[in-house]
Amino acid sequence: MNARLICKSIGRLCHLTAVCLLLAALVEWHYPPKGVPYWFLLPAIIAMALGILLSRIKADEQNLYARDGIAVVVFGWLLVTLFGALPFLLSGAVDSFTDAFFESVSGFSTAGASILRNVESLSRGLLFWRSFTHWLGGLGFLALMSAFSSSLKAHSIHVIQSESTGPTLEKIVPKLGDSVKILYTIYTLLTGVGVVALMLCRMPLFDAVLHCFGAVATGGFSIYNAGIAAYASPAVEIVLTMLMLASGVNFTLYYMFVTHNKRAALKDEELRFYLGALVLSTLAIAVYLRVQGVFGSFGESLRLSAFHVSSLMTTTGYAASDFNLWPLFPKVLLVLLMFFGGSAGSTGGGIKHVRILLLFKLVRKEVAKIIHPRTTRVVTLNGKAVDNRVLHAVGVYFFLLITLFSGAFILVSFDTQDFTTAFTAVAACINNIGPGLGAVGPSGNYADFSGFSKLVLTACMYIGRLEVYPIVLLFVPSFWRRSGV
Amino acid sequence: MNARLICKSIGRLCHLTAVCLLLAALVEWHYPPKGVPYWFLLPAIIAMALGILLSRIKADEQNLYARDGIAVVVFGWLLVTLFGALPFLLSGAVDSFTDAFFESVSGFSTAGASILRNVESLSRGLLFWRSFTHWLGGLGFLALMSAFSSSLKAHSIHVIQSESTGPTLEKIVPKLGDSVKILYTIYTLLTGVGVVALMLCRMPLFDAVLHCFGAVATGGFSIYNAGIAAYASPAVEIVLTMLMLASGVNFTLYYMFVTHNKRAALKDEELRFYLGALVLSTLAIAVYLRVQGVFGSFGESLRLSAFHVSSLMTTTGYAASDFNLWPLFPKVLLVLLMFFGGSAGSTGGGIKHVRILLLFKLVRKEVAKIIHPRTTRVVTLNGKAVDNRVLHAVGVYFFLLITLFSGAFILVSFDTQDFTTAFTAVAACINNIGPGLGAVGPSGNYADFSGFSKLVLTACMYIGRLEVYPIVLLFVPSFWRRSGV
Repeated sequence: MNARLICKSIGRLCHLTAVCLLLAALVEWHYPPKGVPYWFLLPAIIAMALGILLSRIKADEQNLYARDGIAVVVFGWLLVTLFGALPFLLSGAVDSFTDAFFESVSGFSTAGASILRNVESLSRGLLFWRSFTHWLGGLGFLALMSAFSSSLKAHSIHVIQSESTGPTLEKIVPKLGDSVKILYTIYTLLTGVGVVALMLCRMPLFDAVLHCFGAVATGGFSIYNAGIAAYASPAVEIVLTMLMLASGVNFTLYYMFVTHNKRAALKDEELRFYLGALVLSTLAIAVYLRVQGVFGSFGESLRLSAFHVSSLMTTTGYAASDFNLWPLFPKVLLVLLMFFGGSAGSTGGGIKHVRILLLFKLVRKEVAKIIHPRTTRVVTLNGKAVDNRVLHAVGVYFFLLITLFSGAFILVSFDTQDFTTAFTAVAACINNIGPGLGAVGPSGNYADFSGFSKLVLTACMYIGRLEVYPIVLLFVPSFWRRSGV
Repeated sequence: MNARLICKSIGRLCHLTAVCLLLAALVEWHYPPKGVPYWFLLPAIIAMALGILLSRIKADEQNLYARDGIAVVVFGWLLVTLFGALPFLLSGAVDSFTDAFFESVSGFSTAGASILRNVESLSRGLLFWRSFTHWLGGLGFLALMSAFSSSLKAHSIHVIQSESTGPTLEKIVPKLGDSVKILYTIYTLLTGVGVVALMLCRMPLFDAVLHCFGAVATGGFSIYNAGIAAYASPAVEIVLTMLMLASGVNFTLYYMFVTHNKRAALKDEELRFYLGALVLSTLAIAVYLRVQGVFGSFGESLRLSAFHVSSLMTTTGYAASDFNLWPLFPKVLLVLLMFFGGSAGSTGGGIKHVRILLLFKLVRKEVAKIIHPRTTRVVTLNGKAVDNRVLHAVGVYFFLLITLFSGAFILVSFDTQDFTTAFTAVAACINNIGPGLGAVGPSGNYADFSGFSKLVLTACMYIGRLEVYPIVLLFVPSFWRRSGV
């Protein structure tokens, strides 16, 4: 462990955080009442000072090894979310530190779960900050995944990032800096296109920008208590459905599509699995809701079904209707889709479609082995054989996630009394969605959980966003020892 | 596929079924009102006739190959459960075929889920038959697992029986016949000891025998609507706790303990994991229930906590108190323990402790790989290295079970409206427990599900008992082709 270099790297993160806080201060100052928003300025100054302090540390070694990188990610993320919580606390919008921290982690992890009972009472600056943390979180996550798959290309990479078996920019664009630039360009373009499209649906600029932050980052914070339903606009719903859907696709495919390889991009197996799951679930829910008479027309049923399948599967969490009031079947389907998550190389959370796809392929392989014991079948993805170690890692990742989910479910049940609420709250947090069912449904919030449960759920969002392993490592003693790279 | 030999083998099963039905007829005839119990005699005659017919089939080949064996198991089990359903239907105790079939599969699969609203209205013969199907199911399951691990010792064995990595009788006693005999002796001894112990607690002989059938087979059918709570006897509860616990242990360990290797038996890693999970869960629940004031004394709290942890973890399903009325924490813990199940080589269902243990070891291995990428760690069980293919199979088994669970959950949610009821009903059926939470809690039953949901749940019990793969294979076209052994 190279503590000096780790601190130095975190110092740079502090600078970035300060700049972002200043931007939020500017927004706050721009909208009436035009006071001096010290709840942004004070944290910005502290972040800046800490950043300067940390970046002065002298480090002999200049290379970050895998373990150092993980430490930077974990502690950097922690520090950023602590700064992110300060504006909520200092402005008095949130009473307790636990709540402010929950809201901040929910923002940066792009979960979108909220402890606020009344979002509409927040100032413009705070609303901006909430949604902006989504956007920053998405940005950070893209960089993180990119860094993981390029710099950790060692023996352990398949464990941490078993999902990167599919196309990644690192395989196309060799230099890390370049691939991150491309990802950021796609991310910004998606946001820009989204803003324009929403404004064409007569959404005000402020609302459009904030909702695009939430959609492109697959976050889900809205500026109305009723969420997207507040606009009562089918056009807005359709635009957001498409935007969320687009944000759950592997960004590398967009680059492939534009530059050199349209066919390969469209033939990507994860993309097809993702779209297949989406279409099937949407149709099943749409037909069911129409037959049960929940909506008056099939068109409406289809539109709202597509919206919520996109929203929950990509782990965004926007709601255009209180799906908690729907019959059980669509609710169960939506909750299970939460675990599917987005595609690898997107901002989406959850297990990721490529992992689920590989697991299904593994099942097929094992079944074939029973029938034809002597032939060995190779698992492929996009025509290429997948390394056995990767397959191994995928299975273990699945077990680990379900285990952590179960553990958190037990802890939350300590001081929660409703099975559905506890179950879906944990599912929504560990997969970075936001709303669940019961008391945490679209019209509810996380305010009524105990402080203990809120901390557990905060940890879930954290674990889900960092893809489990970095957090698990913290609890392994040998991770902290100097020996062994 | 050798259809003739398969039919011949199933013919033998028909004879056995006929004998068992006649035994139930005898019980029915013994207790007043002493009529001729045609609801047992008629199915017995049909089974006998079919048996004679099938066993007359001439088969050229005398060796059952893996696939043939699986076909015998699947279709044999189906036929036996169909015969098992007839007495309920013919006697008029159950109105519909779906219900009678559900009850029969629940019996033979040792699940213990019931569609009967009032068990106490059944005749003595039918009560005997219900519990006897548990005992027969347990017997059949032991033979099945034994046959799997000896005759299929081919390349595909690790897929079907990844759990048999621990001690099995086949590794100690080479001949299949011998090992089955030993298993049956242990099974019968456990039953006998249980009956005597329960009678010492002043339980009538009839009750004692039937409850031992349910406990030793980890079934869970009772003869009272209130289950074990009807006896209101701490002594009965303690005896049953120990009996259920003993039935969830790998039977091979008893043989090892008695014959040659006390130390190895006591040091078995699965046993320690099983007991550890049991003790920790019991203590956690006991303390929680006492602190919450659910029970008046810690002793009572501990006794009932131990009872229900044993009951649900071993997948028996007896209830000595309506745990559905407890706070959420113990309920969630109990539901999650359902998935743990019994030990390999016991009559318990669920995923089995050895599989969960191996998965935890796999997680440790992967984490170690991140920290020390260049060293490879071998996963061991009882000091012996576990084959990589077995580890692979365990991971896939876990994913497959969770997937089938999720699929069934979606299907049951089609015409059920409560999340908790649907979730725990599927969990209780696929892991062969019986009672769950909500409407299927200890004081409830499965009567109110639709016919469709009942069939789905019946399939779950079937899938759980046969350890998933045999059922999955039926849906693979190449399984049915003649070519390829």
